[in-house]
Amino acid sequence: MITYRAPLEDIRFLLHRVFDYEGRVASLPGYEDASGEIVDAVLEEAERFAVNELLPLNASGDAEGCVFENGVVRTPEGFKEAYRAFSEAGWCGLSCDPDYGGQGLPHTLQFLINEMICSTNLSFGMYPGLSHGAYNALALHGSKTQKNHYLPQLVAGTWSGTMCLTEPHCGTDLGLIRTRAEPDGVGPDGETLYKITGTKIFISAGEHDLTDNIVHLVLAKLPDAPPGVRGISMFLVPKILVTDDGSLGERNAAVCGSIEQKMGIKASSTCVMNFDAARGTLVGAPHKGMRYMFTMMNEARLAVGLQGLGIAETAYQSAAAYAKERRQGRALKGAAEPDKAADPIIVHPDVRKNLLTMRALNEGTRALAVWTAINLDVSTRHPDAATRQECDDLISLLTPIIKAFMTDHGFTAANLGVQIFGGHGFIRETGMEQLVRDARITQLYEGAYGIQGLDLVGRKLPQHAGRLLRRFFHPVAAFIEANMAEPGMQDYMLPLAKAFAKLQQASVWIAQEGMRDPNQGAAAASNYLRLFALVILAYLWARMAEVALAVPEDQRDDFHKAKLATARFYMTYLLPEANSLFTTITAGAGPLMDPPAEWF
Amino acid sequence: MITYRAPLEDIRFLLHRVFDYEGRVASLPGYEDASGEIVDAVLEEAERFAVNELLPLNASGDAEGCVFENGVVRTPEGFKEAYRAFSEAGWCGLSCDPDYGGQGLPHTLQFLINEMICSTNLSFGMYPGLSHGAYNALALHGSKTQKNHYLPQLVAGTWSGTMCLTEPHCGTDLGLIRTRAEPDGVGPDGETLYKITGTKIFISAGEHDLTDNIVHLVLAKLPDAPPGVRGISMFLVPKILVTDDGSLGERNAAVCGSIEQKMGIKASSTCVMNFDAARGTLVGAPHKGMRYMFTMMNEARLAVGLQGLGIAETAYQSAAAYAKERRQGRALKGAAEPDKAADPIIVHPDVRKNLLTMRALNEGTRALAVWTAINLDVSTRHPDAATRQECDDLISLLTPIIKAFMTDHGFTAANLGVQIFGGHGFIRETGMEQLVRDARITQLYEGAYGIQGLDLVGRKLPQHAGRLLRRFFHPVAAFIEANMAEPGMQDYMLPLAKAFAKLQQASVWIAQEGMRDPNQGAAAASNYLRLFALVILAYLWARMAEVALAVPEDQRDDFHKAKLATARFYMTYLLPEANSLFTTITAGAGPLMDPPAEWF
Repeated sequence: MITYRAPLEDIRFLLHRVFDYEGRVASLPGYEDASGEIVDAVLEEAERFAVNELLPLNASGDAEGCVFENGVVRTPEGFKEAYRAFSEAGWCGLSCDPDYGGQGLPHTLQFLINEMICSTNLSFGMYPGLSHGAYNALALHGSKTQKNHYLPQLVAGTWSGTMCLTEPHCGTDLGLIRTRAEPDGVGPDGETLYKITGTKIFISAGEHDLTDNIVHLVLAKLPDAPPGVRGISMFLVPKILVTDDGSLGERNAAVCGSIEQKMGIKASSTCVMNFDAARGTLVGAPHKGMRYMFTMMNEARLAVGLQGLGIAETAYQSAAAYAKERRQGRALKGAAEPDKAADPIIVHPDVRKNLLTMRALNEGTRALAVWTAINLDVSTRHPDAATRQECDDLISLLTPIIKAFMTDHGFTAANLGVQIFGGHGFIRETGMEQLVRDARITQLYEGAYGIQGLDLVGRKLPQHAGRLLRRFFHPVAAFIEANMAEPGMQDYMLPLAKAFAKLQQASVWIAQEGMRDPNQGAAAASNYLRLFALVILAYLWARMAEVALAVPEDQRDDFHKAKLATARFYMTYLLPEANSLFTTITAGAGPLMDPPAEWF
Repeated sequence: MITYRAPLEDIRFLLHRVFDYEGRVASLPGYEDASGEIVDAVLEEAERFAVNELLPLNASGDAEGCVFENGVVRTPEGFKEAYRAFSEAGWCGLSCDPDYGGQGLPHTLQFLINEMICSTNLSFGMYPGLSHGAYNALALHGSKTQKNHYLPQLVAGTWSGTMCLTEPHCGTDLGLIRTRAEPDGVGPDGETLYKITGTKIFISAGEHDLTDNIVHLVLAKLPDAPPGVRGISMFLVPKILVTDDGSLGERNAAVCGSIEQKMGIKASSTCVMNFDAARGTLVGAPHKGMRYMFTMMNEARLAVGLQGLGIAETAYQSAAAYAKERRQGRALKGAAEPDKAADPIIVHPDVRKNLLTMRALNEGTRALAVWTAINLDVSTRHPDAATRQECDDLISLLTPIIKAFMTDHGFTAANLGVQIFGGHGFIRETGMEQLVRDARITQLYEGAYGIQGLDLVGRKLPQHAGRLLRRFFHPVAAFIEANMAEPGMQDYMLPLAKAFAKLQQASVWIAQEGMRDPNQGAAAASNYLRLFALVILAYLWARMAEVALAVPEDQRDDFHKAKLATARFYMTYLLPEANSLFTTITAGAGPLMDPPAEWF
């Protein structure tokens, strides 16, 4: 009952009509070959792979799960073949450096393809997703030898990567980690060798049967480490040691102790990893591990946001198809199809409200994802440093919002999908409840909602005296001024302007109150993040409406008319939440912090 | 990691201090023996059973699930023994008629015990829950023979019951059912016998190994049935035929074809039931099946609302215990426990916000449940017809709200619980994710949210020219007038009065607009239901605050202080949603209904 096609029409609308992909990305140095036409062709190819290879394995992978036996993890049937086809087609290295065998295509394309992978098989996507994080960290911080030995294999997909952070007693608070690294001689290039000892948990792709080797990036403490997060270093610890010529040597003492039984993403192995004096090398400088980790983490947070959208898109398409097919009851103003025993349930206002909620947030967050991805490409490649910085600021600001809001939306949309299926949605064979179970993890890993709220309010807002905030506020203010009086735009501009004013007020309140008492900012953080997201989406919906309205009315096709209708729904049904959020933001920390812990 | 004790202190506060159980219930004819002391003692006994017998089987029942083999369903290990102990202790017949072996105790007690059962083992609770529905339908509409043969066994728990409504092509729209009943001779008491043929799906407790017989109440159509819901009759179809003296005879052709693989409540069997000319008798009059079904359904909807609360309570207690134990990070204003490596996460405002959200809605909806249950007892037993009617009106109004809002809360609370556990909440062994999967069904069966919204707006609001609505509006208006100026009450009364005014406005809007266009009412329905629920809870929180404030300040213990703190949290953090809901209610059906179906 799962229905999915890649939203290519929406993607092309965003790339070519709303965000000027050609002008902003294809013109960047190094992306000369990534023309709009090439990008469109690659997206179609990606859709074929996702729909034909990944989607058919999604339900079976969930039913079968990963199996742990004698220290080895077996992925579900078909995963090995699909992974081989995936890596051989070059998808692992899509946006990677051509020097290491990558295709050097823009992040924008990577983001859009990630969405398709998550729409069709979130569990599968975890394996190349983790490799990509390891690639990023090594590409930026690795030594020449580390890069030469590991990057080509990660790009080719013959080896995969992990991030080994969490320990049983610490996930969010990495300052508490106990894994230690001790110097153990000198390597052929004069680099210090280390022995790593400790236990890591929740390691996605920590062990599996898809690749010849697994590259663990492990956070650990050196003997002379200062306490807390300032004393964390990053180590490269391969599953199988790599010889001086880059070939595979003996097995390292980095072994999987068990895998977790989870609510969802059951085809993705989640491992307990035991490092027992495992041999490794330092990545970058000592005690800088947290900083490098954030290199991986920031892009991972954006990727996890896309996981939310991916699932939400499948939930929407499946629910919309079902609502047009399932017949129960009659339209309230008289039978829509009197010759049939009942009308399709899409005649009911509440079913439509649920569908439009999913759709308005899917298309809104996809616009946010594309906007961010384009900024990411510009921030990496633009010749002008100030332009790069400007884009980087904006991405820093948007990252916690994308992670938290888009994963919340993914989970909510999956549940709305189940709701439209009614009791049938609760039955495993329709596939809808799997979306709920799979989506649930995205709200937890890479920093839960509360952590993203604190990042936004405690770090991003005050950073550079509010400069990051202005990277969003200024263009929005300019857009409002330019379009407020435009004919046809009032339906979108007036709600945007009002909500934007609330966001500005809330930002001032938090800045002032948070200075007086940090709990004031922290108490408001998660509601502020949600308010921020709603205003971002209002801005992007208004921009999409502007583009659709630019098409003369008699030439507007269903796609453009639906855009305008969905924009209107967003403004009237979803954006009003901004008012309640504002009220709770300014309620202050008192009601939360006054009760002593023992009352709970 | 699941933590649960029955909330006895809160229950006693509600029964004896807020809602005057002794004065309103224990004084009713037939309840003379159900004094406050007796009730308290029974509740303590129920807690022991729930905690010692049901809770230990919850996770294992989920892992094992029900097994279908050769037409027989095997419940998970331990369920048989627990069920035997449950029925032998008399819990099946707690509120049933003593004439049939019941204990004749008030509904109020039944409600509170149901909450405990759902807190500790929702799947288990399905079996006696369904029996209770069948008991109600037969007690009200069954013939003398039907009552004599079946009620004592249902009360004793030796036989169980089902509701056979849904068919593959119809769940919500029962007018479409195809199961047919044909007359087939005359029974010993002159009653017509029938042969029932058809397939029913999603039949909870349709087949299992807990009882000697299963009593199916089956909706089917007689040969002369008018079309649609006016042509539905109810039949009693036992799994094993009952002889004239009430003993078990031969096997009936009512057999389980398969059981569903589900997201949750895996220890509750969900059956496809095949009736192949199965023998049955008519319940009540021909073509009145829908009306009788609602006898079961209305109480079932209240019971399902309690399922939401039951799960939410376990989620809260487990999350609160974890938040006081799990150490990550530091309090923002300086370490709370500097001698430890980190502070417990309950120091963080956002963790507290999540906990208080669960708690404020748990205690608020428990107050709603007790208030409703007391009204149910009065509506059944009060000597004065006008008083009975008044209570019945209020229950009719509250039923869709309780079903929809409390199950939504149950699911949300279960998810907040997972969120507080972080990644550990996604792992099966903590037990938190099971709460989410189990809670999900409560939002679907017995009428999904959208159906409850339509019931509220389309039936309950206009009924008797708004009389039902006034049963709530008048006491609230009187309470506001009486308490608005009371010292200390302003924190609660002002928000209540504002939200109540919004609800009144919204009610007028729906009444007026809905008359003009039924889609206007239907478009607003689910948001209106939620607004209504928030106002009800504001009213009940204000009443609880009033009671707590009546305790002199120097004598207020932690329980009373926590009540006032939670009331304040509800008013400042949760009630403000009422404003946004009001805005969307008055947005009208246009944005939902204008897009043609093919745009979706």
